[in-house]
Amino acid sequence: MSEPPFAVGVFDSGVGGLTVLKQLMVQIPSVSTVYLGDTARVPYGTKSADTVIRYAIACARLLIERGVQLLVVACNTASAFALDHLKKTLSIPVIGVIEPGARAAVSATQNGIIGIIGTAGTIRSGAYQDAIHAFRPSAEIISRPCPLFVPLAEEGWIDGEIPRAIAKTYLDDFKDAGVDTLVLGCTHYPLLKSVIESVMGKTVALIDSAEAVTQVVSEILTDRLPVRKRDAARHRYLVTDAPDSFREISERFLGHAIDEVDWVDVA
Amino acid sequence: MSEPPFAVGVFDSGVGGLTVLKQLMVQIPSVSTVYLGDTARVPYGTKSADTVIRYAIACARLLIERGVQLLVVACNTASAFALDHLKKTLSIPVIGVIEPGARAAVSATQNGIIGIIGTAGTIRSGAYQDAIHAFRPSAEIISRPCPLFVPLAEEGWIDGEIPRAIAKTYLDDFKDAGVDTLVLGCTHYPLLKSVIESVMGKTVALIDSAEAVTQVVSEILTDRLPVRKRDAARHRYLVTDAPDSFREISERFLGHAIDEVDWVDVA
Repeated sequence: MSEPPFAVGVFDSGVGGLTVLKQLMVQIPSVSTVYLGDTARVPYGTKSADTVIRYAIACARLLIERGVQLLVVACNTASAFALDHLKKTLSIPVIGVIEPGARAAVSATQNGIIGIIGTAGTIRSGAYQDAIHAFRPSAEIISRPCPLFVPLAEEGWIDGEIPRAIAKTYLDDFKDAGVDTLVLGCTHYPLLKSVIESVMGKTVALIDSAEAVTQVVSEILTDRLPVRKRDAARHRYLVTDAPDSFREISERFLGHAIDEVDWVDVA
Repeated sequence: MSEPPFAVGVFDSGVGGLTVLKQLMVQIPSVSTVYLGDTARVPYGTKSADTVIRYAIACARLLIERGVQLLVVACNTASAFALDHLKKTLSIPVIGVIEPGARAAVSATQNGIIGIIGTAGTIRSGAYQDAIHAFRPSAEIISRPCPLFVPLAEEGWIDGEIPRAIAKTYLDDFKDAGVDTLVLGCTHYPLLKSVIESVMGKTVALIDSAEAVTQVVSEILTDRLPVRKRDAARHRYLVTDAPDSFREISERFLGHAIDEVDWVDVA
């Protein structure tokens, strides 16, 4: 009897985690995935730790019921607040975006001055700050939330004058502080990479946690994934609300259309 | 035995409804209020009708348990999707923001060309469009969602170049269409009134549904409110998540600080 296909579960509060899913599909094309966007309760970034933990547990359980054997928490806020709890309570490997992003930032920096941008919840949690200091205690860190970046990405306003003016307002302090590495601590932000780069300058390393987390998943899966063709991989999409809006907006994040998005209840 | 004090319940998905509460406090200073911000599940504007109805029922029940005798649904999305259901199932008067706003728009327009801006959910629902057409079938209506206005208001970026550029992008089509009346169909938008006015010009009437709904409440209460001093009025604030953030941001909406915000569970 053949082993059931290995599936990675990816969850996020909404569409943002699709930037992580996209990286996974590109870098590990043979893996099957189940994506869960908790669109009924998006955004997590403004919510309290207790609430986010409760939601994250419900999402993780649903994905495990659907047969995933490895869980990627592709939401910075959920990673910041709920990862320890998930690791303790679940029997499958759980990978968040914070630690891989922090490790990549520490590898990238030359001058030890690192900037972090993310949702209000992620920044307030101090999770990136702690993770970076765990790898390099001497790192100098500055951080701030950038709440307008998420709706900019979702509107598709990713270049031109408006996103540039907003990015300048948010990022000028980072430039003045001399950061040489900036962590894009929210899964929406990679869509704004070029405008962020145009403000920060090309010498500043932008850390995309989607890339960093995929590297970790890839390492874990090296020995476990059967060798098989890309077209053997299956990708499922689940949301807790408004599948049609999700399908519409997902193309912007994923670069291709999704055929089917299923509604699920995790209340 | 004296009658228990009359209290108006006001609910919104978050802080936006405070623009309605503020109007109530100014125009009917003798009335006590209980405000409920469903901050655990904000925003409603991106969620489906079924989900918003479920949330609205839970919020309304909680406020009735707290003794309110009249309910203001100070959220355009909840008014659009859930008002009929609430009116049918609750035994107290329920007032939404859509109908008063629509009536005010029809009174204000000279040329019959009316613009509506709001969240994606409110615009998609067609509720303002229907309400305006019920009052004036010949009205010409154009509408669009303006998702960046909410984070702009919450960030406090309410004047200067960035909000102006964003407002221009959203509103130029309305100017070109010759609207003489624009409905601010989201309770956050009154904070951006001056920037919206600077783009639309002073001859365009901006309809603030907070003012319109307060007028209706005032009419209902005329005969029911005991004559008493302003300082007899009590104001309570309840939220379903993150009371501290609510308290911080509420000052921007209310114009004064709130002493106490209580957490409640309506799950």
